[in-house]
Amino acid sequence: VAARDPLALDALLDPLHAADIADLLEQIAPNERRALLALWKGGVDGEILSELDESLREEVIEALSPGELALAVQDLETDDVVDLVEDLDAEGQAEVLAALPAADRIAVEKALAYPEYSAGRLMQSEVVRAPSHWTVGDAIDFLRSGITLPDQFYHVVLVDPRLKPVGYVTLGRILSSRRDARMRDISEDSFRTFHVEDEQGDVARAFEKYHLISAPVVDDDDRLVGVITIDDAMTVLDEEHEEDILRLAGVGEGALSDSVLDTIRGRLPWLVVNLGTAGLAAFVISRFEGTIQALVALAALMPIVASMGGNAGTQSLTVAVRALATRDLTRSNAWRVIRREAAVGLLNGLILALVLGGLTVLLFGSWALGGVIAAALVINLLAAALAGVFVPLLLERIGVDPALASGTFVTTVTDVVGFFSFLGLATVVLL
Amino acid sequence: VAARDPLALDALLDPLHAADIADLLEQIAPNERRALLALWKGGVDGEILSELDESLREEVIEALSPGELALAVQDLETDDVVDLVEDLDAEGQAEVLAALPAADRIAVEKALAYPEYSAGRLMQSEVVRAPSHWTVGDAIDFLRSGITLPDQFYHVVLVDPRLKPVGYVTLGRILSSRRDARMRDISEDSFRTFHVEDEQGDVARAFEKYHLISAPVVDDDDRLVGVITIDDAMTVLDEEHEEDILRLAGVGEGALSDSVLDTIRGRLPWLVVNLGTAGLAAFVISRFEGTIQALVALAALMPIVASMGGNAGTQSLTVAVRALATRDLTRSNAWRVIRREAAVGLLNGLILALVLGGLTVLLFGSWALGGVIAAALVINLLAAALAGVFVPLLLERIGVDPALASGTFVTTVTDVVGFFSFLGLATVVLL
Repeated sequence: VAARDPLALDALLDPLHAADIADLLEQIAPNERRALLALWKGGVDGEILSELDESLREEVIEALSPGELALAVQDLETDDVVDLVEDLDAEGQAEVLAALPAADRIAVEKALAYPEYSAGRLMQSEVVRAPSHWTVGDAIDFLRSGITLPDQFYHVVLVDPRLKPVGYVTLGRILSSRRDARMRDISEDSFRTFHVEDEQGDVARAFEKYHLISAPVVDDDDRLVGVITIDDAMTVLDEEHEEDILRLAGVGEGALSDSVLDTIRGRLPWLVVNLGTAGLAAFVISRFEGTIQALVALAALMPIVASMGGNAGTQSLTVAVRALATRDLTRSNAWRVIRREAAVGLLNGLILALVLGGLTVLLFGSWALGGVIAAALVINLLAAALAGVFVPLLLERIGVDPALASGTFVTTVTDVVGFFSFLGLATVVLL
Repeated sequence: VAARDPLALDALLDPLHAADIADLLEQIAPNERRALLALWKGGVDGEILSELDESLREEVIEALSPGELALAVQDLETDDVVDLVEDLDAEGQAEVLAALPAADRIAVEKALAYPEYSAGRLMQSEVVRAPSHWTVGDAIDFLRSGITLPDQFYHVVLVDPRLKPVGYVTLGRILSSRRDARMRDISEDSFRTFHVEDEQGDVARAFEKYHLISAPVVDDDDRLVGVITIDDAMTVLDEEHEEDILRLAGVGEGALSDSVLDTIRGRLPWLVVNLGTAGLAAFVISRFEGTIQALVALAALMPIVASMGGNAGTQSLTVAVRALATRDLTRSNAWRVIRREAAVGLLNGLILALVLGGLTVLLFGSWALGGVIAAALVINLLAAALAGVFVPLLLERIGVDPALASGTFVTTVTDVVGFFSFLGLATVVLL
């Protein structure tokens, strides 16, 4: 591809969608990427920039001259520019902002003043609005009058004289109604507005729950300041899912295009925490060295109890974290969920204890050893089920993201309870 | 709430959105739910049914009489009816289908003939289409002619005389163009159609990637048969994420409203698999019983090496599974990703080995023991990193969902490698 022929490159890349070009840039090796950009940077437009992964965006922006950058960003809607700019360093931000037309620059600066991850950052300031007393004819004439309209819009927001949104009309209803119909009479029944400081995850979940396509955003004075569209909500939801899944695994953030050092920075802290909790488990075992010395088979069997608990705990935990994220687990049903998990843990524990206890009796010929491992397994699976729900609920209560820290706590509980109950029971029963 | 007063209940529930009523039904206890349904079943409409969790839907549908059911479903679009019906047993399906008007029934039956999770199941058959030679005026007159239009639509699909889609026009463009403009001239540049048998996950990811709002679906003869809208794509994406996150944790499927028995059925198989792999690890340990007998401190330290490997493996694995799901990890960059993970594993291993080895020397006063645990940790973290990428890649290659089975394989590798390298090195070096 990068055979130093800009024209052939143009011919190849031009028919591609911006998202595909961004994917291409993410997948090729860093040196190929630099070569490609050097040849083809004139072709990089704003859409490609906004599709790029954050870690690459800075690299690509630095490769562009201010003039190329200005050309690239001027066609974007304000929400895309905000998204592009918010993760850049101060210098990069200033460079992009300077490249924008004045009106857009003000809108972007205003959006950047809202808290990170707020509806204000997510919205675009380009809104199609109309006074609520207009007729369909007024609206159509207004739309045809040659004003600049957003690229994509699906509703006309009706506002009162103080710019407060009072309803919205789908374009489909406008098109299928007579010119003399009043906009107010054909507006949708259900109508939701968001506040600029609403958390973007909540906004995205409301889009999904209520099947919204776009929704107006108001400021403290209830005035219409922008609109959020479903494609942005979908992206937010996707990012939140990604965060949840990566955090559950103890991977801070992580894109495949991150460098080795960034990746280590994201993962090492959790491994260090795990080192501490594994040390705790090792300490519990070391208290029973006498018991192990007397019956060394215990050393081989004890990881089974701990590992089963860890697995069962992760199961409860994942369901609980996911349910907290989707707001399916709330205070009103928490006790019912805890009771259910406890029942599941106890029953799974009893079934598996029968199997494991039976196998142990067969292999080691000792009913006592089989009984000890079976009892320890039941205790640990019950502990795992309870920890799997209690830990995320407690973390949520004290304001920590349950996806981030639960895993370590839960496996600490199951390791400690597993080793302690097995070796403790063995000490009492077998020695 | 359920104080046997249907009128008060009406007053309470009527202003709520269908999604909120469905949430309420999911969160209250089963006996409260039955009482509420008995009192208020006349109020259950199709929208509430389609918002309900699958496990509850059947229960609610059974509580309704055929007449109530007919009333409930007749206002739904065909894609919602398909979604409602596909998980019911044959009897329930027949009941709902019988309640539909003939034209809708045929459309639903046709959709049900497409494979599960295909675009054909996801689409609605209600499409607004227009011949490509029409002008904006023709289209507006057509839309105003009083034909039944879908509740929500965002594009008019242009078709040729053989019903093949050739482009689409956003309603915003129609509204802002003059009556004599040709539809063909104002159609969107980028235009994607899906085939009825496309996999719905691929469709949903294409919606997200290309920021689509709606897209036409064609059959084998390239004829327009329906349209998929973004809200359905968003739901699919959400379901796929949920599946990924739950499968990674070894929880088959799982909703909080599932019964204890259903939950056990989902989780027990993975615990049984884990019992097998934990048994393998126990077997490895049992081969070194002589070594442990000679130096019982090894029993306390060995779970640290295995647990660190398990954590690091889960980290690589989660990133890889997620990247496979989003198509960020492909054959073309697989080797680069593997090399990166190996580098991360090696470096994390070296850093943590220094810490753990140092602590061991301090606590046990043995340089040899510190060296053994440090070396085992490096080996296991490298193995974890490689297994974390290789296992999901291999599973994907042979057509198994990597989210479903990777975790067990990876922790088996890290347990076996961890115990074997630590105890093996200890046997060679320390005895």
